[in-house]
Amino acid sequence: MSVHACLFTFLSAVGTVQGGVEGVLDSFHRGAEIETDRVLVRVQDFTPEKADQLIWLRARVHTSRAKGKQCFLVLRQQQFNVQALVAVGDRASKQMVKFAANITKESIVDVEAFVRKVEQKIESCSQQDVELHIERIFVVSQAEARLPLQLEDAVRPDGEGEEEGRATVNQDTKLDNRVIDLRTTTSQAIFRLQSGVCMLFRDTLTKKGFVEIQTPKIISAASEGGANVFTVSYFKTSAYLAQSPQLYKQMCICADFDKVFCVGPVFRAEDSNTHRHLTEFVGLDIEMAFSYHYHEVIDSITDTMVQIFKGLRDNFQTEIQMVNKQFPSEPFKFLEPTLRLEYTEGLAMLHEAGVEMGDEEDLSTPNEKLLGRLVKEKYDTDFYVLDKYPLAVRPFYTMPDPNNPKYSNSYDMFMRGEEILSGAQRVHDAQLLTDRAIHHQIDLEKIKAYIDSFRYGAPPHGGGGIGLERVCMLYLGLHNIRQTSMFPRDPKRLTP
Amino acid sequence: MSVHACLFTFLSAVGTVQGGVEGVLDSFHRGAEIETDRVLVRVQDFTPEKADQLIWLRARVHTSRAKGKQCFLVLRQQQFNVQALVAVGDRASKQMVKFAANITKESIVDVEAFVRKVEQKIESCSQQDVELHIERIFVVSQAEARLPLQLEDAVRPDGEGEEEGRATVNQDTKLDNRVIDLRTTTSQAIFRLQSGVCMLFRDTLTKKGFVEIQTPKIISAASEGGANVFTVSYFKTSAYLAQSPQLYKQMCICADFDKVFCVGPVFRAEDSNTHRHLTEFVGLDIEMAFSYHYHEVIDSITDTMVQIFKGLRDNFQTEIQMVNKQFPSEPFKFLEPTLRLEYTEGLAMLHEAGVEMGDEEDLSTPNEKLLGRLVKEKYDTDFYVLDKYPLAVRPFYTMPDPNNPKYSNSYDMFMRGEEILSGAQRVHDAQLLTDRAIHHQIDLEKIKAYIDSFRYGAPPHGGGGIGLERVCMLYLGLHNIRQTSMFPRDPKRLTP
Repeated sequence: MSVHACLFTFLSAVGTVQGGVEGVLDSFHRGAEIETDRVLVRVQDFTPEKADQLIWLRARVHTSRAKGKQCFLVLRQQQFNVQALVAVGDRASKQMVKFAANITKESIVDVEAFVRKVEQKIESCSQQDVELHIERIFVVSQAEARLPLQLEDAVRPDGEGEEEGRATVNQDTKLDNRVIDLRTTTSQAIFRLQSGVCMLFRDTLTKKGFVEIQTPKIISAASEGGANVFTVSYFKTSAYLAQSPQLYKQMCICADFDKVFCVGPVFRAEDSNTHRHLTEFVGLDIEMAFSYHYHEVIDSITDTMVQIFKGLRDNFQTEIQMVNKQFPSEPFKFLEPTLRLEYTEGLAMLHEAGVEMGDEEDLSTPNEKLLGRLVKEKYDTDFYVLDKYPLAVRPFYTMPDPNNPKYSNSYDMFMRGEEILSGAQRVHDAQLLTDRAIHHQIDLEKIKAYIDSFRYGAPPHGGGGIGLERVCMLYLGLHNIRQTSMFPRDPKRLTP
Repeated sequence: MSVHACLFTFLSAVGTVQGGVEGVLDSFHRGAEIETDRVLVRVQDFTPEKADQLIWLRARVHTSRAKGKQCFLVLRQQQFNVQALVAVGDRASKQMVKFAANITKESIVDVEAFVRKVEQKIESCSQQDVELHIERIFVVSQAEARLPLQLEDAVRPDGEGEEEGRATVNQDTKLDNRVIDLRTTTSQAIFRLQSGVCMLFRDTLTKKGFVEIQTPKIISAASEGGANVFTVSYFKTSAYLAQSPQLYKQMCICADFDKVFCVGPVFRAEDSNTHRHLTEFVGLDIEMAFSYHYHEVIDSITDTMVQIFKGLRDNFQTEIQMVNKQFPSEPFKFLEPTLRLEYTEGLAMLHEAGVEMGDEEDLSTPNEKLLGRLVKEKYDTDFYVLDKYPLAVRPFYTMPDPNNPKYSNSYDMFMRGEEILSGAQRVHDAQLLTDRAIHHQIDLEKIKAYIDSFRYGAPPHGGGGIGLERVCMLYLGLHNIRQTSMFPRDPKRLTP
């Protein structure tokens, strides 16, 4: 097959009343000199105002159905679709109808067509008031006839159509064929919303005077002793993948950047095969110096979350509704200002509900979820902060509570009863940090560089790290984090 | 040392006329209940309008100089600084002046002071019209007496003050002590500008309808045959670090996201010890479907670069001037629309300048630089595109030029004669891609998943990847990429 013929795989694609193929090939294939003035119209712009116009459209063949001398196509662009029709008559031959009927699903086609108003709304399409009467049709890129999964199966709500024997697609099949699964309205909506979360996160913090930083992912030492860390071959030595940007965020604070954030991958070599763990995820990280009280940090983070929730509610309703069609959930509720409970208050609520656990014990996942439900009942919010965790269950660099050595100036944040952020005021004094590391039996040699960062003047500071995929999953009320990671990584999945 | 005493390392910090220490400790240490209403004023806000006000300030001791019964301090916040004075008199004892004089450089202090107008401008400070008359001073965090480098040495232009025996700081010392080096006005400016580049990149693309995506960094196969790739231990198997997000960007295009971008780390296991190579850098990546011609992609990318250049020119002049003080350079020039030359035109200019090289030969780094100078002379621009590279020097997935099989629909972009982006129209047809891979003798089994991505309908598309650190280095006219990477990674450096 020659390069020329291949360029747009047009050769198998000729189905036209008037043989416009060469003209089209021409405008595609020429170099810099010739460009076409043809304008492609977007599917969402097909409204009655366009009636009787002759337009060009590039779209996927979503479905095609021949019926006597006609072929009905549904043409799709992302979440939008429109009905199109080729009928034997003045403009189309029997051969052309047959050609159109044989175009494989998911192929990309260019069509020239008249926009026509319809009398009865087309309920199955996003563009309900018009259809396209096709004059010419070309295949730009042909899909293989056998698709590994059907889009309509992949968006079917669990249980729906079971009696009729309609299939749903299991998650591994979806992920194995992600390039097709991502075309579904549900996936398109999820990842557009995810893009929105990142934008809202950064815009809010930029307005608050934060500076974006880039931190290295290949690091020479694992700061918390080397557990759960991936090893990398690095020329003649070995290195690790960063479990969090924390050290680097803190160094930036010690280097006078005052308030910083970063968005980037975080790596955890945990063999956790759960609905909410990934081995690689995207961290939305914040660190800031504060003036007098670490609650200044909590307030900055919770306000950022509130701005994200508001931005999603106000600008991503279409996406939220789209996901809800397949995965129904209650709208996400939040308070302003954010509810902040102390750990002891949370424990008291759990005790009252019959849970037996000690004062300095960490929350188990079931207890976190239960507490989330109790908080929702009592305060009507899906988002809250649990403050002042027991010192014993937090990392060595956590600032102890000056008023009660059993507790610490640390906090977790929860959405729908699941943790999305862990954070704390950090110890900024090299001597106290050394003492705490010794208490935790950490090898001082391995964290020397970390401790040394605080020897040349360090302001009091705190921060936290938010899991992007968890925020998206829990905001949308989904039940598996693989739905909100485009190409998820877990102990059993490294592809695609 | 008790936790309480350590919390703000206040104990060594008591130097006050009126013993206000306990009050301060109090407001720092209490929990949620008590917060101070003290307002900290920022250094840049010390102007004559504040004259005679009693204010609080937290800042670093930049320099301190005792002179008889007085001690002059320069207090610094990021790039701003102000002169402050403690003098023996009604409000300050001899002990207090001595205490102030002994505060180590880079310590963080809280001072209560009157703002006073000065008669003669203080040329050495950013706040030239006022000074602070200190009433009380507390050390919030004490720096060790011996600093690994002096900030004033680290910002000294090369060669300046050599006769007086003044030191400059070599780059390894700076990088080894990055937490101090990042405090210099030069570093502060560089990384604030870098943050701006990322913001401008994303904002421009978001306005153009691009969607931000997150791509995995741990991958199961090295797409280009496994050269220059870092290996990661992944549970019981091994994996690689992504050399670029290209496959994933392309999958998103095949999955109907239409136009995508991502910002994230890119890993190259090249043993290149040059001024412009890093083993880990930040990629600003773009991929988009186009309608009729891959120049639509070039136009989107060059317009994005132009928006970045304009945004920097218009909003980051302070930072640019700050860097120029230490590293003088010509202002960065660009044209609108961007200059696009074909490879053969570039070659002709080089031939004319006496360079001997073949038509299908790649440009060497010296020839790239020479061509950059020739282009600057002829067109007065520091930014241009070189289009239609010889097919032979580009990767297998590059779309051949349909008009001339010796060339390809690919391009590089240059700033000040150095490459900052490499990109191309990609082959979107599985069969042609297979043919091209065979031609390049690539093991088809290893790239099966990649090729399969194009089997279910793929639109014509192209893109490119921009190196963030290179853009910052070349825009600012710097000469080493380690200056624009906060924590650079190269074959010899993995720390801090």
